[in-house]
Amino acid sequence: MTEKLNVEQMAARLSAAEDLVVVCHKNPDGDTIGCGCALYHALAALGKNAAVLCSDPIPARYDYMGARHYDGSYEPKTVVAVDIAGVQLFGEGNHVPELTRHVDLCIDHHAGNTGYADFTLLDDTAAATAELLIDVIETLGVAVTPQIADCLYTGLSTDTGCFKFSSTTARTHMVAARLIQAGARIEDLNKLLFDTKSPQRMAAERRALDNLEYHFGGRCALIYLTRDEIAESGVESADLEDLTGLPLTIEGVQVGLTLRQQPGGSCRISVRTVKGMDACAIAKRLGGGGHNRAAGCELEGNLENAKSAILAEVEAELSAQEETECRGS
Amino acid sequence: MTEKLNVEQMAARLSAAEDLVVVCHKNPDGDTIGCGCALYHALAALGKNAAVLCSDPIPARYDYMGARHYDGSYEPKTVVAVDIAGVQLFGEGNHVPELTRHVDLCIDHHAGNTGYADFTLLDDTAAATAELLIDVIETLGVAVTPQIADCLYTGLSTDTGCFKFSSTTARTHMVAARLIQAGARIEDLNKLLFDTKSPQRMAAERRALDNLEYHFGGRCALIYLTRDEIAESGVESADLEDLTGLPLTIEGVQVGLTLRQQPGGSCRISVRTVKGMDACAIAKRLGGGGHNRAAGCELEGNLENAKSAILAEVEAELSAQEETECRGS
Repeated sequence: MTEKLNVEQMAARLSAAEDLVVVCHKNPDGDTIGCGCALYHALAALGKNAAVLCSDPIPARYDYMGARHYDGSYEPKTVVAVDIAGVQLFGEGNHVPELTRHVDLCIDHHAGNTGYADFTLLDDTAAATAELLIDVIETLGVAVTPQIADCLYTGLSTDTGCFKFSSTTARTHMVAARLIQAGARIEDLNKLLFDTKSPQRMAAERRALDNLEYHFGGRCALIYLTRDEIAESGVESADLEDLTGLPLTIEGVQVGLTLRQQPGGSCRISVRTVKGMDACAIAKRLGGGGHNRAAGCELEGNLENAKSAILAEVEAELSAQEETECRGS
Repeated sequence: MTEKLNVEQMAARLSAAEDLVVVCHKNPDGDTIGCGCALYHALAALGKNAAVLCSDPIPARYDYMGARHYDGSYEPKTVVAVDIAGVQLFGEGNHVPELTRHVDLCIDHHAGNTGYADFTLLDDTAAATAELLIDVIETLGVAVTPQIADCLYTGLSTDTGCFKFSSTTARTHMVAARLIQAGARIEDLNKLLFDTKSPQRMAAERRALDNLEYHFGGRCALIYLTRDEIAESGVESADLEDLTGLPLTIEGVQVGLTLRQQPGGSCRISVRTVKGMDACAIAKRLGGGGHNRAAGCELEGNLENAKSAILAEVEAELSAQEETECRGS
């Protein structure tokens, strides 16, 4: 069992620690990297030996965070995990399994945190771990420099879709205000994080839009990309993740589907739904799972069969919802 | 000459006024409508006779603001303009020219406000007029209800691209926090304002992406829509405005061009540039104008000629910038 700490207690544990390594989760996103680098800078400002560790390479777009990366040159005495809900998210690369066999401290905002660390600072009302970490850093007595502010702003803004997601609270905006006052370069960061797509990503989007279909009187929109189209566009798979939000942005659409044919021939299906429509129920019936509004499944067989199968489930869910509405009125 | 007021003085003038009409600018956007409706609700809460007036129809998507619209049933004694920089922005419809012959009060955030009203509350450090109006409403002694919060959040978020634009400050975020605390329904509003496109708009975007071209080694990206393509997609002209931001979101692009063939056959060109590249200089040489990063011009003749003409100017600007960079290094 982990022992729960508050901000002051976590700051005290960090103050007493030496030779730290700050671990980010695999497939790193802006929040885990931003927090890892911000905490590194804070620890370095206290004169501590510290570095950031991640099982996967940190995408080059985050180079501006300028943290030191762990290179094996010292034996870590304290392992700190940031934004990591469970041990399965540590990953396998960069000697992470050996180095994280024992985790001392964890700072996180995921409600489902499994309590794998000796001591945990958990606040699941925070929209991002960065929203929480700023208080730890200030309690450490470290000034939030423009560089630390850039790191924390990256975490805060990416985890909230630039303050658009429902997780955004008054506190999220108040932390953003503090980071701007501390010198976060929000113009450059917003352009980099939210308004930059690779030409390959744009080519794939073009193909997907060419394949846009409406079903059930416009209540369902579907885009797909064949294996060949993905290969021809030259886009990386990770770069296609946010494309799954596209169909649901169309007015009147209640279920948005994105089908991507995989190199092996199977078909990955992403289901996105509006409030009141259960994406997980749709995906589950085809062996998948996920959340209420975002779920997915993977089907063998050709694209046409996958399309028919998922559309049948969408139709069932739309009918079920209509019945609920009738009963409700 | 207008007399400049501070927040307290403007609140005092509003408190003393009767039979008000709150005027929004033509081609109304989220800030002018949001402010018009928020101020209406505040005046109504004080028991005053008031209504909102706009020369153009208010788009149906803003219906949730629920203000009373001026119907000619009373003679306005006090005219208040919100978010209107100059008289040329009042418009011609709905008897606006007669009703705004004399403007008593103006609340605005545009640096170029011409001072057409008797009394003006101007703060050009505000990212939106809504950022300023919240203080006026609170000074009036009116509680910011969830409905007023929705109106002001609409103004604040739309004028800043959901907190992405460089005009966003710490204060902008602090006002957003206050509005969320007051009950603004940000999840629904963000979906409506930032993640909703009509099927027609999506069809036009698909056509535009099919027409995507790269020039000068990927430093310039160009999209275009012919008159026929616009007609076939069924999109409204106003709905195409934000498409002009698309080419500049591509990695490595320094100049983004959007060409739209007009019903008469001429070609409207929108120029968007990254920091350090002058959009206005490019547009000016073809008889257009605008701002440093967003400018435009309109050319007669066919699309191909328009394309050649604008690309020649872009090339000149790119070369000029390269020279500056060489001299600088």
